[in-house]
Amino acid sequence: MERIHVKVPGEQPQDREYMKQALALAEKGHGWVNPNPMVGAVLVKDGRIIGEGYHTRYGQLHAEREAFKNAAERGEETAGADLYVTLEPCCHTGKQPPCTEAVLASGVKRVIVGCTDPNPVVAGRGIRLLREKGLEVVAGVLRGECERQNEVFFHFMRTKLPFTVLKYAMTLDGKTATVSGKSQWITGEAARNRVHEDRGRYMAILTGVSTVLADNPQLTCRIPGGKNPIRVIADTKLRTPLSSTVVQTARETPTWIVTAVSDAGRKEAYEDAGCRVLSVPAKEGELDLQAMMQRLGEEKVDSVMVESGGTLAWSFLKAGLVNRVQAYIAPKIFGGAGAPTPVRGTGVDAPPEAFLLKKPEAVWLGEDLLLEYEVSGQDA
Amino acid sequence: MERIHVKVPGEQPQDREYMKQALALAEKGHGWVNPNPMVGAVLVKDGRIIGEGYHTRYGQLHAEREAFKNAAERGEETAGADLYVTLEPCCHTGKQPPCTEAVLASGVKRVIVGCTDPNPVVAGRGIRLLREKGLEVVAGVLRGECERQNEVFFHFMRTKLPFTVLKYAMTLDGKTATVSGKSQWITGEAARNRVHEDRGRYMAILTGVSTVLADNPQLTCRIPGGKNPIRVIADTKLRTPLSSTVVQTARETPTWIVTAVSDAGRKEAYEDAGCRVLSVPAKEGELDLQAMMQRLGEEKVDSVMVESGGTLAWSFLKAGLVNRVQAYIAPKIFGGAGAPTPVRGTGVDAPPEAFLLKKPEAVWLGEDLLLEYEVSGQDA
Repeated sequence: MERIHVKVPGEQPQDREYMKQALALAEKGHGWVNPNPMVGAVLVKDGRIIGEGYHTRYGQLHAEREAFKNAAERGEETAGADLYVTLEPCCHTGKQPPCTEAVLASGVKRVIVGCTDPNPVVAGRGIRLLREKGLEVVAGVLRGECERQNEVFFHFMRTKLPFTVLKYAMTLDGKTATVSGKSQWITGEAARNRVHEDRGRYMAILTGVSTVLADNPQLTCRIPGGKNPIRVIADTKLRTPLSSTVVQTARETPTWIVTAVSDAGRKEAYEDAGCRVLSVPAKEGELDLQAMMQRLGEEKVDSVMVESGGTLAWSFLKAGLVNRVQAYIAPKIFGGAGAPTPVRGTGVDAPPEAFLLKKPEAVWLGEDLLLEYEVSGQDA
Repeated sequence: MERIHVKVPGEQPQDREYMKQALALAEKGHGWVNPNPMVGAVLVKDGRIIGEGYHTRYGQLHAEREAFKNAAERGEETAGADLYVTLEPCCHTGKQPPCTEAVLASGVKRVIVGCTDPNPVVAGRGIRLLREKGLEVVAGVLRGECERQNEVFFHFMRTKLPFTVLKYAMTLDGKTATVSGKSQWITGEAARNRVHEDRGRYMAILTGVSTVLADNPQLTCRIPGGKNPIRVIADTKLRTPLSSTVVQTARETPTWIVTAVSDAGRKEAYEDAGCRVLSVPAKEGELDLQAMMQRLGEEKVDSVMVESGGTLAWSFLKAGLVNRVQAYIAPKIFGGAGAPTPVRGTGVDAPPEAFLLKKPEAVWLGEDLLLEYEVSGQDA
């Protein structure tokens, strides 16, 4: 299942290697730059790297300017160099002045771009501007990898809805708990660490009130130095106990309760405890998930990891709101006709109606396997 | 998860490559040599292969003799050559005279052996005999792979019970069918082809009467030139319809019905249709699976692929009779709280009681993933 690379016009043999380094630099901003994209940049002259940079945090310098700054600190001369950048340089003024200006000022002669910026105010204009000024621009080197790295950014830019990952852990026979409902622990340490890393990468973690009632989870990122996601509880009828961990720790870690209850008095107790309470309409007695996600998008939440029971997971899928599925598969079998599975609800009636998945990625984490797919939608 | 190779005493740099070729030759006998082991042999002299052979079919020449014959046909001189053989040469007379005699007569000077023969009448004696005669013997090159190739043979030799593989196909959310029981098709063509190849590799395919009643399957190997397994139906109360495909085609493809019914009159109708009916005691109202597998072992069935519903799958696991699990995972989601899963029954109560799996192997078959594990038993 290896990616096939097709050379793009103007691509040189060394270009992929340097772009890989730019990708690795960009990755360091994961979880810190939202809702901006991750971007990495590498400056190369006479076959050696003379400057490196990446977008470190929302509001800080863009990757290109970081790389120029780094080259200056090293006492290197950027005129005539090649610039590798994972995302097309911006040509508009936001929190920072346009990067294209800095690129032109630097005197670089060749710019190698991973993917174009879907932001309608950029969208290929950065590349066009540089070409008009006489620079050689090679676009699309490792485009697939560069797009994958910023899938959250691209999705949010396009839809204004959070990029949504449905995550679950199950046994090889498809169980998320035993018949008696016990689930600690299905996966091993390496897999659990990866879950915590991902919690730091996505902006919010979402679960249903039933999970809060059953497990009283913390829903934090327990990686040292990691960033806690916003905890979002989907709670139609406002049943989250005020004594629950998420409410009790709402002053340290943001806790948002999304509910169909509109009674201000009932919401107040949660607000007093430090929670935010967002009201969303109900639909057939349940929260309108589409409305909830739109609301989260309005609050600039660009990404959500759903770690819920099978019923809410089904509702998310059915509403067409899941972009990616992460299934951790543990090397064990629970058995049990009544043991819970990761996606429940009503389910599809016939196999051709199944939700289809594509672009598989598999990685071993200790003894567990993490299988990730993009959701390509319901077939029928 | 790559295997780490530790060099064995006397191993030369080229030895693994030639042993891999011997393994590939041996594999050609898969499904045809039972209950003998698969064996492959390669003769190398002055850095080139001068003879190749493998055990082709039960009762035919052993691999070493095939390789010597092949060298003779090519007009090559075996004196002074190196012999690579996946399994220790035999030193006893069975259907064929001892291979050690042929090895000694050939004049080869160095013998590289994959793994030793667990057959108590061989068990290292073949290697010892060759060493006593002055040959250099290097034992254990790619031992792991060689043992894996003949796991059926080793298991059957040791336990007299068939090596048992539990096979199922499920969606990424652990469903073997939709809520309405529909399961055609979960996996794609490449995965289904692999299932048919495996049916040709194992000696019997076993299912429960409920599967016959629900799906009326053929349970044949539909690979051109493939060998049909013996079809074994676990049928406590003799409910298999005489009109079912397995009974109707019992004269072309062996069909064995294992039952707790002892009434000769009721068995006769199946026997008249060409089936064999094996009687086995019941235990708590169900077939005693241990007794059934012992009986199959006595009938020289060295391997069984279980393709059943989740209830029988659970009973097999619970009885400690499953050696390997093959899970095909399709890139789709059915959902459904009531949709069936691959292993049902009562299930374990707490995660630490789970059946544990080890030595994972993963392979993509088109869009589907085949995950295979050895069963290492119940933890608690």
